[in-house]
Amino acid sequence: MQTRCKMARMASLDPVALIARKRDALPLTREEISALVEGLGTGKVADYQMSAWLMAAWLNGLSEDETVALTEAMLHSGRVLQLPTVSLPKVDKHSTGGVGDKISLCLAPLVAACGVAVPMISGRGLGHTGGTLDKLEAITGYQTRLDVRRFEKIVRQVGCSMIGQTAELAPADGRIYALRDVTATVESIPLIVASILSKKLAAGLDGLVLDVKVGRGAFMKTPAQARALAQALVRVGTRAGCRVGALLTAMDVPIGNTIGNALETREAIEVLADAGPADTRELTLALAERMQLVAGVTHSRAQARKRAQLALSDGSAMECFLKMVKAHGGDVRQVQTPRLLPATRCQVPVLANRSGWVTDCDAFALGWLAVRMGAGRLRAEDKVDHAVGIELTARPGDKVVKGQSLCLLHVRSPKAAQALLAPVGAAFVIGRSRPATTPLVLTSLGAKSSRE
Amino acid sequence: MQTRCKMARMASLDPVALIARKRDALPLTREEISALVEGLGTGKVADYQMSAWLMAAWLNGLSEDETVALTEAMLHSGRVLQLPTVSLPKVDKHSTGGVGDKISLCLAPLVAACGVAVPMISGRGLGHTGGTLDKLEAITGYQTRLDVRRFEKIVRQVGCSMIGQTAELAPADGRIYALRDVTATVESIPLIVASILSKKLAAGLDGLVLDVKVGRGAFMKTPAQARALAQALVRVGTRAGCRVGALLTAMDVPIGNTIGNALETREAIEVLADAGPADTRELTLALAERMQLVAGVTHSRAQARKRAQLALSDGSAMECFLKMVKAHGGDVRQVQTPRLLPATRCQVPVLANRSGWVTDCDAFALGWLAVRMGAGRLRAEDKVDHAVGIELTARPGDKVVKGQSLCLLHVRSPKAAQALLAPVGAAFVIGRSRPATTPLVLTSLGAKSSRE
Repeated sequence: MQTRCKMARMASLDPVALIARKRDALPLTREEISALVEGLGTGKVADYQMSAWLMAAWLNGLSEDETVALTEAMLHSGRVLQLPTVSLPKVDKHSTGGVGDKISLCLAPLVAACGVAVPMISGRGLGHTGGTLDKLEAITGYQTRLDVRRFEKIVRQVGCSMIGQTAELAPADGRIYALRDVTATVESIPLIVASILSKKLAAGLDGLVLDVKVGRGAFMKTPAQARALAQALVRVGTRAGCRVGALLTAMDVPIGNTIGNALETREAIEVLADAGPADTRELTLALAERMQLVAGVTHSRAQARKRAQLALSDGSAMECFLKMVKAHGGDVRQVQTPRLLPATRCQVPVLANRSGWVTDCDAFALGWLAVRMGAGRLRAEDKVDHAVGIELTARPGDKVVKGQSLCLLHVRSPKAAQALLAPVGAAFVIGRSRPATTPLVLTSLGAKSSRE
Repeated sequence: MQTRCKMARMASLDPVALIARKRDALPLTREEISALVEGLGTGKVADYQMSAWLMAAWLNGLSEDETVALTEAMLHSGRVLQLPTVSLPKVDKHSTGGVGDKISLCLAPLVAACGVAVPMISGRGLGHTGGTLDKLEAITGYQTRLDVRRFEKIVRQVGCSMIGQTAELAPADGRIYALRDVTATVESIPLIVASILSKKLAAGLDGLVLDVKVGRGAFMKTPAQARALAQALVRVGTRAGCRVGALLTAMDVPIGNTIGNALETREAIEVLADAGPADTRELTLALAERMQLVAGVTHSRAQARKRAQLALSDGSAMECFLKMVKAHGGDVRQVQTPRLLPATRCQVPVLANRSGWVTDCDAFALGWLAVRMGAGRLRAEDKVDHAVGIELTARPGDKVVKGQSLCLLHVRSPKAAQALLAPVGAAFVIGRSRPATTPLVLTSLGAKSSRE
């Protein structure tokens, strides 16, 4: 019966009519959107038809109903994991991408140590934003490609596992994203929502917490844009059957003190060792609270924070990370002794050209400079150098004297630093007075967002 | 230098940026549009990128500058004919497509007999509108595929030649039209303008007269739409270096008495024999006037009409047609004796179900019914039956009595007519009073449009 209904639906698929409806800003039904996505998989909808539809969707928008339908169609375009042997509630986190964002690495084991299963599927860096997989792979031997059985087993035994996107999960998302990337249809809230949620929900999650970045280092430059994206993610994700919460967080200056893969892994390990920069630590704890609340393992924000702080101080979060790295074939000695992580021999300081207060540090500029150093990618097929990067030694709010170092460039040779000194220096603003402090977490939305 | 400039332009081609500009309704330069069209030819712009751009153009429009640039880029995507041995001014006609529109067949030889060279490149029928090539091919042996040298020779020696579109001329139009057809981006005035003009102007014309149809049997349903298309055609064509005129003509009822290929060819021959239905004759003469004025062979409309009427009455237009058919390998006996044209043995009358005045006859309905009979095509690859069609025996303004025939269905068997009797009958409206007469030529635009 299922099959017959499906065939009846497919039989009536006329891609041109579906494109024309979106072109004319008329609503599409769930069945029509499903037929479009299925058709892309079967070849009944050609790439050039999907790209015309995507442009019409970019310009005319998608309603919430349409976005839910698109998300679910993409989600069901491949395998949907169940992880039946994992009895704990399964919660993941997704960040819309920032500079110096190594939060996933310390967050997943921390939340796992708090009694939540974290089956995390991550991506690679592209453009000025880094990717969790590249940071994990800075640990020698760490395997990000595991089959689903192994992934499930690690989640069950360790509490968390972090792998890369597989072709089995939400393949329509991969295909559609590849088209959007080359047809100027990336920056559309409904299309972004469907892409993020279909990929994430294919892991069979009970809950999802979104870290929606806002600011010049983020894809969403204004709070209004970021809030619209966060609201859409929460509403659509909830309607797709997942408990979804979201934080809006600032992305004007880099998170923490490091940009670059091994440097960021080292910083995440510092947080797991109950140390690390205050902002990295705070963002990790804020997200850990939300993940516990969404998982339902606690009903109070204060309790959730207390539990997370305990998991950092009693070493259980670190233990969880060590177990996960071991299970993924990674070199645990590099976690125990982070100076064993890939590093450059050469560190070149960038010096303050005047005395005063550091009032600003441009995450967007430093993100692109890190790409130029080899820490990131311009194209998906590029290789990254895990060792290179930028280590901040001064941050907004710090007082510096002329000639003091603002940051260290971790480079392969002194020569490689030469062309970077001026632009990296220009990313820092030194003023006469102490800058006002700005909050890191701007807003909280969705499931359990009350700030009791 | 030419080549270097071209390479410099191509080197800077970023298809995604060009799509994004149109998506954001920002203007594209002539060079950018040229790079896009050239890129489609060289593979630097993929089909899925062009279709996204076309959808953005459909929704955000193209300025007149952009439409001129697109027309010229498509026009220069292949060979542009010069026909250097043809000394007379070269003028063609293009109709936006109607039902029973056999005008080209009598118009081209008529205008040629008036001292204008008519190198006409025509299309095939698709959907409810017929195509000149199918009507020509109703003449046994008529070749619509000739190489350019032969085409030029016939135009020089006979005054006119009518062939089909070749892959050499404006190949980008063929590629772009194929994409528009399957991505719901056909009905856009600037895209229609660029398509029509690039194809026509590639024949190296001095002048072009457009017959823009308006009404329920036309693509443009309202006078406002048709006028907008006609104005855009005249303005863009003129800026592309051609003398362009346009007539807006009514397409609510079929033109003349016949729908179907051989039937229409027969009617065109009747006009060339100085007879034929009044409306077919009038539309032919109105367009012949405009073509002579655009060619500059006369400066007065009255003179142009007089000359055309003479060419019909003295047999010179018919002689021109006979020579052209002969030069194309067609059977001239079928022109001399039109009952030798392909015909069905069976003609089934559709009878009036009441007495009164025929007040209406739906061209759109009859056009589709003719397709159903086999006279036209649903898809470009379908074959047509030259003999079948509908021959009107009553037209709006005629008085009929109950049981009198409204039209004859030329079918292969009486059985084939059964399912058609009711819908064909329903296309006629019989009322109690004589309908008001409506003009055939609604408006005249462009070069030499004064009605002196």
